[in-house]
Amino acid sequence: MTDRIGLAVIGVGRMGRLHAANAASLPGARLVAVCDVDPAAREWVAAELDVRALPSVEAVLERGDVDAVVVATTTRTHAQVIAAAARAGKHVFSEKPIGLTLEETDAVLQALVHAGLQFQIGFQRRWDPAFVAARRAIEAGAIGEPRLFKAHGRDPQPASLAYHDPANSGGIFLDAAIHDYDAARFLMGREVARVTAHGATLVHQPLATVGDVDTCVTVLEFQGGGLGVCEWNRFAVYGYDAWAEVQGPEGALRLGGLQQTALLALGRAGVSHDTMPGFLERFHDAYRAELAAFVGALREGRPASPGVEDARRALQIALRARESFQQGRTLDVAALPALT
Amino acid sequence: MTDRIGLAVIGVGRMGRLHAANAASLPGARLVAVCDVDPAAREWVAAELDVRALPSVEAVLERGDVDAVVVATTTRTHAQVIAAAARAGKHVFSEKPIGLTLEETDAVLQALVHAGLQFQIGFQRRWDPAFVAARRAIEAGAIGEPRLFKAHGRDPQPASLAYHDPANSGGIFLDAAIHDYDAARFLMGREVARVTAHGATLVHQPLATVGDVDTCVTVLEFQGGGLGVCEWNRFAVYGYDAWAEVQGPEGALRLGGLQQTALLALGRAGVSHDTMPGFLERFHDAYRAELAAFVGALREGRPASPGVEDARRALQIALRARESFQQGRTLDVAALPALT
Amino acid sequence: MTDRIGLAVIGVGRMGRLHAANAASLPGARLVAVCDVDPAAREWVAAELDVRALPSVEAVLERGDVDAVVVATTTRTHAQVIAAAARAGKHVFSEKPIGLTLEETDAVLQALVHAGLQFQIGFQRRWDPAFVAARRAIEAGAIGEPRLFKAHGRDPQPASLAYHDPANSGGIFLDAAIHDYDAARFLMGREVARVTAHGATLVHQPLATVGDVDTCVTVLEFQGGGLGVCEWNRFAVYGYDAWAEVQGPEGALRLGGLQQTALLALGRAGVSHDTMPGFLERFHDAYRAELAAFVGALREGRPASPGVEDARRALQIALRARESFQQGRTLDVAALPALT
Amino acid sequence: MTDRIGLAVIGVGRMGRLHAANAASLPGARLVAVCDVDPAAREWVAAELDVRALPSVEAVLERGDVDAVVVATTTRTHAQVIAAAARAGKHVFSEKPIGLTLEETDAVLQALVHAGLQFQIGFQRRWDPAFVAARRAIEAGAIGEPRLFKAHGRDPQPASLAYHDPANSGGIFLDAAIHDYDAARFLMGREVARVTAHGATLVHQPLATVGDVDTCVTVLEFQGGGLGVCEWNRFAVYGYDAWAEVQGPEGALRLGGLQQTALLALGRAGVSHDTMPGFLERFHDAYRAELAAFVGALREGRPASPGVEDARRALQIALRARESFQQGRTLDVAALPALT
Repeated sequence: MTDRIGLAVIGVGRMGRLHAANAASLPGARLVAVCDVDPAAREWVAAELDVRALPSVEAVLERGDVDAVVVATTTRTHAQVIAAAARAGKHVFSEKPIGLTLEETDAVLQALVHAGLQFQIGFQRRWDPAFVAARRAIEAGAIGEPRLFKAHGRDPQPASLAYHDPANSGGIFLDAAIHDYDAARFLMGREVARVTAHGATLVHQPLATVGDVDTCVTVLEFQGGGLGVCEWNRFAVYGYDAWAEVQGPEGALRLGGLQQTALLALGRAGVSHDTMPGFLERFHDAYRAELAAFVGALREGRPASPGVEDARRALQIALRARESFQQGRTLDVAALPALT
Repeated sequence: MTDRIGLAVIGVGRMGRLHAANAASLPGARLVAVCDVDPAAREWVAAELDVRALPSVEAVLERGDVDAVVVATTTRTHAQVIAAAARAGKHVFSEKPIGLTLEETDAVLQALVHAGLQFQIGFQRRWDPAFVAARRAIEAGAIGEPRLFKAHGRDPQPASLAYHDPANSGGIFLDAAIHDYDAARFLMGREVARVTAHGATLVHQPLATVGDVDTCVTVLEFQGGGLGVCEWNRFAVYGYDAWAEVQGPEGALRLGGLQQTALLALGRAGVSHDTMPGFLERFHDAYRAELAAFVGALREGRPASPGVEDARRALQIALRARESFQQGRTLDVAALPALT
Repeated sequence: MTDRIGLAVIGVGRMGRLHAANAASLPGARLVAVCDVDPAAREWVAAELDVRALPSVEAVLERGDVDAVVVATTTRTHAQVIAAAARAGKHVFSEKPIGLTLEETDAVLQALVHAGLQFQIGFQRRWDPAFVAARRAIEAGAIGEPRLFKAHGRDPQPASLAYHDPANSGGIFLDAAIHDYDAARFLMGREVARVTAHGATLVHQPLATVGDVDTCVTVLEFQGGGLGVCEWNRFAVYGYDAWAEVQGPEGALRLGGLQQTALLALGRAGVSHDTMPGFLERFHDAYRAELAAFVGALREGRPASPGVEDARRALQIALRARESFQQGRTLDVAALPALT
Repeated sequence: MTDRIGLAVIGVGRMGRLHAANAASLPGARLVAVCDVDPAAREWVAAELDVRALPSVEAVLERGDVDAVVVATTTRTHAQVIAAAARAGKHVFSEKPIGLTLEETDAVLQALVHAGLQFQIGFQRRWDPAFVAARRAIEAGAIGEPRLFKAHGRDPQPASLAYHDPANSGGIFLDAAIHDYDAARFLMGREVARVTAHGATLVHQPLATVGDVDTCVTVLEFQGGGLGVCEWNRFAVYGYDAWAEVQGPEGALRLGGLQQTALLALGRAGVSHDTMPGFLERFHDAYRAELAAFVGALREGRPASPGVEDARRALQIALRARESFQQGRTLDVAALPALT
């Protein structure tokens, strides 16, 4: 069993707890420990999964049986945890985004690269069966050259005001719409050259008090031509809704996934089916697949993906979109030299 | 305008009124008159469509400007109306079934054939875009040789007890399931060799008092192999539901049509859409198309279809299914020599 | 029969021919004549529908038995035909848009208003069962106050270069996207305050030679809050695709209609269904319903709708969207005083 | 970790391998060993999951760290493996059916009951989210008293002739349709009183040479009223297809699940989506859930379900259906006294 990858999950809130459960059941991995600043949270998950509960990032990083860490803490702490992991020689799987600025992000990713450590970012759409099938169909020429990308992501409701405070999460562009910016790059196979962003607080007015919005629309112009339209909002009371479409001269691909259970109810009021309670349910298989891929990359010495450049590019688009919204005008997305 | 076909509609209840409206708006036809035993019904429709209201079948048949009649009276009177039309030299489009026995049916159809008059029966599924497309796909080899037929038809509720009295309508096998027996012949391209039928009053107990049931299941064995399963019931409170499927060694075709309006409502309780209030809505286009085809056949001197043999065969299956249900055993469907 | 409305259809290309067929079969109307500059076109349709073929607009307008005209000529001639109709005292149903400038449009609509004549514009989405049901659901509070509008309309391919020449059709914003600007007003129940438009020739490069694009994206900001995102393109090889969505704090309504026939084919390659060949098929029922409504309004002396102000508002948005695209910036949509 | 349930999987063909993978990743279980008569099969799975490969049932049953066995051998050996497990004091989870006769089945299940051992049968539909949701909806009164059950199950193609030999698998009624007989009991909440079965070899003629058919239709009559119609066939080249419906006086519930990935491809030939390659994909989550439930029942000392009586009842219906088909007549399903 010595070739199993030793994992520790840092931060076991909603997302980290799912990563921990997946880590505990992946054939090629061994979950060594979980860690959280909240003793109740870490003890609960540790008991549930029969692993150690550790009180601090340091306690995790000093363990020799931990090969890699899964970072699922609050967004604003990602960079410092990753920096520490880099110093301790641990591979890193991290939730998005890495940092709230490109400088901070580049610094910690550079450290990982210099140390020869692997890095993967939690853009789970890339591991969802529908997104994977779409990419394969595009590569097989099903729609010709992709020319138009459309996506929306919608949450049933906001989380806490603290969560949405841009100082913690980066705001809707960095915290949420960034998923679709990455999906745009993944499916269009091109980089974004210009962004025009709009935002508004259409339903949940308190978000405005911390400087966030509940709705954003981003128009993307791709290098070499191609348009994209991404919308995200936080008031889809009907359930979590991740939708995307790519259109080319030979057809289009449309990715949905609104129905959770294959059951229709036919009654006097019509025909109805259920929806997705949240992203955990919608991307249940993808979260497991992305961690399996990370573990597989570590075991086989292949580069993990989506990686350093994917993390940086998506963040750069998100930062420029936020700026575009704030300034009310279209902005260029500059070329971004690769980290070396 | 002399080449327009002069039509009269006999019986303007729910079904006849729709036929009359279609007759009034078909480019190649001219609706001359409507007729009904109920003065209020015939006057209403006549005023609505700006045509004559006639008080009797005789008054219709003696008019020289009536080339053909559409028979939409209660089922038990079909045969005598058709017989009178045959004597008067009028072509006939009739609702199904023609008679409540094969003998009665054969007699009046024979009279039409001998008089060289056209006949078409209202098996409107044959004119529904989905059924037509299915037949074309089968003929094009999309599923290989059709081997399994399945269908169900469901009404939201029974009509009146008088309607369901087998002495008036023939009961569920002759009145309702007959549509699917015809669809089976249309899509399988084979005759039925044996039937096994089941029935039960599952919800609307009063139907039993007149000798009818609200649910029936018929298993069909086709000549040369092939199975069919038809179900009909009268308690689909969610709306009218006509469904069919044909399966062969290369695939299957599935015909639905439960949704009336292309609108989805996404709410806290899930996603929902509307249903079909009744067969008039489900087969709205088919009812118009079948009458247009009848008129086209008359104008161009082509044989109308589905015609005499289709009417007889479907009735024969329905009669044997009812007998099978009553006797609790499988029955042969004898060969039926064509009328000449 | 004297209370039937006498109609004439001016311009019997693809759209006009459908209007003529509908006019010929509406119970409350009488199609008197059709007119087209192309003798073959007008003779064909006239023979098909058994009405007069007239060679000129003048010949139509001088007839006393013509109460109203249906204008389906090429876009750039709409205004002059309507002006002539106004002078001749004929009510007008016209395809969109009325003119290529707001001044021209206002002039001819003013003439109709002053003459006490009825006017209706061919925004047929307002008569599509799904759009009607959506509006009713919104009015019934199904989604709460509408806050986000999204729509796309897509044609399978461009028409001729001459058609797309902005001098003839106004270009994609006036010719196509205008349908969704009207739908936005219809479903959101608010006026548009600001527009930001993008466009690109993503597939059909020749369109650029006449100054049009094959793809446009318009972001709408509504008075009093609310966002809209409209996309239109001309390279949906999979079929005509009209889609819309309205979201509010209590849910969303989604309008589709991609499938023409209720048939699924299940084969080795998966499950498939057909699509809509074009807008004539998608809005088949709506085209008939809008003309029936126009005729009904004339017969009953009610104001026709969508009318003068709807025509002007949608055109104003389309003109500003085109300007926004050309200037690369967000533009206000000024208040528009009603014509009196 | 001592409270984890020690599991061994006996038979690691397609089905057993999936059970083994699930057993290896369930938090409350520990997969101790796998066993198969084929050394290559057992070594492969053992290596993949990092557990012992044992050469015989005896070697499995003598281990003290095995608390329960999962029986996934060929059907005709189920009974003897279960009998041995009972003697060795091991709890049993077994694939269906237990034996090829009711006598054999009763004998081994009696042995388990007498020994106070737990038993669960692999009717995985009971753990599928859609079937579970349907049962809950029925219990909540969504459709009123269930009155009509319909189901079909379809395999893309037959397995080997040896597999379908009734001496090995029991034939289509015991091997396949039994799933829907259990689902009928699960969703209708009633026992079956009479069966009428039909069968035919519609496509795969070689099946007839071993005495099996590729298609069967079973009509069920329930105690106290209610009808059921179950169809199963082995030529659904479009993919695995498990479908069910329950209808009552207040509505219906329809369970599908034909689409594997939430992706639509929109092309010139129409709109298409993928299908289910096989039952492993369709019931992926259900297979994991059923084993988790078994482990949960063992850990908490609750009775496992579906259990002894469910296994016996479904087998009894299957046996009577096969007889009905062979005799060409309707048969009663006698009352079945519970094992004690």
